[in-house]
Formats: sequence, structure tokens, C-alpha cells
Amino acid sequence: MALAPRFREDSADAIVMFIRDKVRDAKAKGVVLGLSGGLDSTVVAALCVRALGPGHVLGVLMPEQATPPKEMEDAAGVAKWLGIEHIVVRLEPVVEAFREQLGGDVEPRAFSNVKPRARMTVLYYQAQIRGRLVMGTGNKSEILVGYFTKHGDGGVDYQPIGDLYKTQVRELARHLEVPQHIIDKLPSAHLTPGQTDEGDLGIRYEDLDRVLLGIELGMDDADIAERTGLPVGECARVRGIVQATRHKRRAPLMPKLGIRTPGLDWRE
Amino acid sequence: MALAPRFREDSADAIVMFIRDKVRDAKAKGVVLGLSGGLDSTVVAALCVRALGPGHVLGVLMPEQATPPKEMEDAAGVAKWLGIEHIVVRLEPVVEAFREQLGGDVEPRAFSNVKPRARMTVLYYQAQIRGRLVMGTGNKSEILVGYFTKHGDGGVDYQPIGDLYKTQVRELARHLEVPQHIIDKLPSAHLTPGQTDEGDLGIRYEDLDRVLLGIELGMDDADIAERTGLPVGECARVRGIVQATRHKRRAPLMPKLGIRTPGLDWRE
Repeated sequence: MALAPRFREDSADAIVMFIRDKVRDAKAKGVVLGLSGGLDSTVVAALCVRALGPGHVLGVLMPEQATPPKEMEDAAGVAKWLGIEHIVVRLEPVVEAFREQLGGDVEPRAFSNVKPRARMTVLYYQAQIRGRLVMGTGNKSEILVGYFTKHGDGGVDYQPIGDLYKTQVRELARHLEVPQHIIDKLPSAHLTPGQTDEGDLGIRYEDLDRVLLGIELGMDDADIAERTGLPVGECARVRGIVQATRHKRRAPLMPKLGIRTPGLDWRE
Repeated sequence: MALAPRFREDSADAIVMFIRDKVRDAKAKGVVLGLSGGLDSTVVAALCVRALGPGHVLGVLMPEQATPPKEMEDAAGVAKWLGIEHIVVRLEPVVEAFREQLGGDVEPRAFSNVKPRARMTVLYYQAQIRGRLVMGTGNKSEILVGYFTKHGDGGVDYQPIGDLYKTQVRELARHLEVPQHIIDKLPSAHLTPGQTDEGDLGIRYEDLDRVLLGIELGMDDADIAERTGLPVGECARVRGIVQATRHKRRAPLMPKLGIRTPGLDWRE
């Protein structure tokens, strides 16, 4: 049998129940999320609408210089398709203010993380003034390889599709009848022009997800290589990335100095 | 015996070893932290210097409109006392850019969280261009009652004094020979003029820490009240805050849909 994540239709219902529970537990009035025009945010928005109704979901569009205008048109189209309110908050002036205070001639790689952190800041403001939660749009593939900005797009209240591999999110999108042109897009963070996820990661999601599933199942690199047909070195490379990015998936650690109370603290 | 956290001198060494280990594990070149002129950031800076030497510690001063100029003088004084490099990044233009994009007439309470998030963004930029880690300055009292901004001052790589109550941090400061005028300050987040921690929390740290210790020791509210002389309703109030802010002390949750691999995922 092929080693590949499989989509289960009942995952949609499980996620919908999760969203409904968390909003109720927090006594929140709904949710806020960033709409990028891409697959993940569209799927999360659709699930939130199923869970809460369109009146309790706000989509926030946050374009900046590197954002293709077509993506924002698509994001607005998603809001229209779902019947949810959307607002536009321009990120460019904020990003430029950061650039100037950081000395003007910024280091591009480090500076690219400023944008997702500014978006997080805007989303929390929009959520707080409405008494709502911030929903994340990270998927399991991205999260396991740390392909997100710590305290940026990773800085959310909940991750509704965080246990679905990217290939499963695509299948869920078909199940939710997401418009085909959104399903067909090449995944991209759009932090720099021409960027694609698969270019950044150096592997196709289809292959990445199979390797990650093998790791999750407790297989060793040789087994995964045999069951996927991928080079063993490639499997080892992915495993190394998963291990090196563990710090991005947990709350900040602290040294343990005294009594330890499970559930109260923030420790290893 | 009185119910009160006690300071142990060996906690300084434990924290120093923790900082050294985490920097080495990450193959980082040092640490970056925000210096506010207050007690917590001064203590963390002093511990980082003990762990790594002054050449591997950068203090970042990030004043904005509500910051008393005296605090920044004190922060620069701390850098001088420790012999570490410090830089100043003005936050005001960034905060103003956010204000404008958020519609100008902002809701003050929600907007006050913009500042710590902008500071986090600046600290990570400064850390990344230098190949360093971001050290947090949260103490156990603050963390347990959620008195910090999620993904703001709570958005760091490690929390070196996160297992020390505020009253223990003050004793540690004496042990580290922190300048007396810093030890004597009234704790304040300085997000709005005249703000003090104890005013915001509605309880003195001395009392708060005793209640938190009682909760940590598994005592019920009546026991804590008896051992501290505080009203039982006040003990219950603190316990309620600890429970309601649990979401601020853990990584974002996601619904569990499939296989569960300990240590790999980000779940309940």
C-alpha cells in the first residue's frame, strides 16, 4: 500500500466542532482571520462559516508591496463566496515605518519576517475590539517543517487545519466546494515576488507529506525511502528540519527551579 | 511556617547554565533582549552576561510616547553597568503607522497591545541579523496570571526567569548586586502613563506570590486564605485568572484528527 496521507470526509466535521467549542469556551463573539486568496485561508474561512455562520467570521486582507493584486481580488472573492464581512488593512506604511526605524538598509531575509508579525498584530487588534478569537491558517506540513514565522503567522489562538497535511487540505477544499481556481494555485507565501513554497522547501508537497507521514508513523529513513521511492538522504533532510524547528511548535521554555505543577506551567 | 516563595542562591547558577545550554544547542552567537530600565530586564541581562560574557549580549531600548525618559536613561545605565552593547530603536513611528492603518481613532485597550508586539518584531529582527536568540524577561507571577501580551512580550525564544516569582526576582537582583534604584522601582509595564503592575492586577506582588505558591502546592482557596490572611474570595479570584489565561502559556491548539506522535506535534 502506498505511503501517503489519506483524506477523511469526517475531518471537516471534527474541525467544525473544534472551532465551535473553542469559541464557546472563550465566550467569544466569533473569529477573525487573514484572507490571502490562497488555499489554506480559504479552507479555514469556509470551516469557520460552517461552525459559526457567516455573521461571526471576519476576513482581513493585508496587502503590501510584494502582494500580487490578483491575490487580493481572489481574497475578496472568497469573502463574497462565503457571505462574510471583509476589511482591508494596508500593511505597506507599517512595514515602511519598521524599515526606517531598523536603519533603512535592512537585511532582506530577516526583514521578510516583519510582514507576518505585522499581520499578526493587526489581526489581534481586529479580534480584540470585536471580542473574537484569531484563527490560524497553518497546515500540518508547514507546521512540521517550521515553514512559518514564529510569533507571526504562527502567532494565533488556534490552528484549525494544523493536523491536516497540505495534500489533505487540498482534498478538503474540493469537499467544501472551494472555487477551482483557488485549489489550482501554486502555494506561495508571497513574502517576496515569485516565491513558491515548494521552491523554498526544495521538495513537492506530495513528496514532503509522504515523508512526514512516515516520520509520524515512526518509520526510519531507509523504510520511508523504500516506501516512497525518494532518496534516503532526502528523507533524512526532512527529518532534520522537523527536529531543528521543534522550538517553533512549543511555548517558550524556562529553566525548572522549583515545584512542578502539571498544567500550570510553561516548561519542558 | 509562613506561606511565601523563598529565594535560593543556586537558582542564579541554574539559570546561567540554562542560558548557556540553549545558546549552544541553537548554535547561536549570543542573545538579544529588550532593556526597559526595570527590574526584570536588568536581572535577565545580568544573568545573560554571567552565562555568555558581555560581548554576546545586546540590549535593545525601544521607547515610545508613553515611555518616561528616565526609564531609558536607566536602561542605558544598566547596559553601561554590565558593559554590554545597546542600541535604541524608536517605536513611535511604527506605532503611529499602525494607528493610522487601523483607522486613526483606535480603541485604547486593544491598541495598547500593539506596542509589545512591535517590540517583539524589532527584537527578532535584531536577533536574526546577528544569529542570536531572543531572551524574554517574563517572571513567574506575570506569566501565571497572564499579565503579558500574547505574541508580544510573551513572544520570545526562552524565559530565563520564568520560574521565579516577582518577589524572588527582587531577591535575585540583590544577590546580583543590581543598582539599588532599579530594585526600588514600582513595577510598571509603562504602556500607559501612570500605570503600575499592582494597580492593574489589583493585588500587591507580595500577596499575589503567596497565593500563586499556594495554588502551585495544590492547596485549596480556604487553606491559602488561612495561611496568608487574605480573603478567600481574593484567593479564588487569582485562581480564576490563572485558569482563564492558560491559553497564553501554551502553543496554539489544533483539533486532533489522526495519528499522535509525542514530541512531534502541537496539540492538547
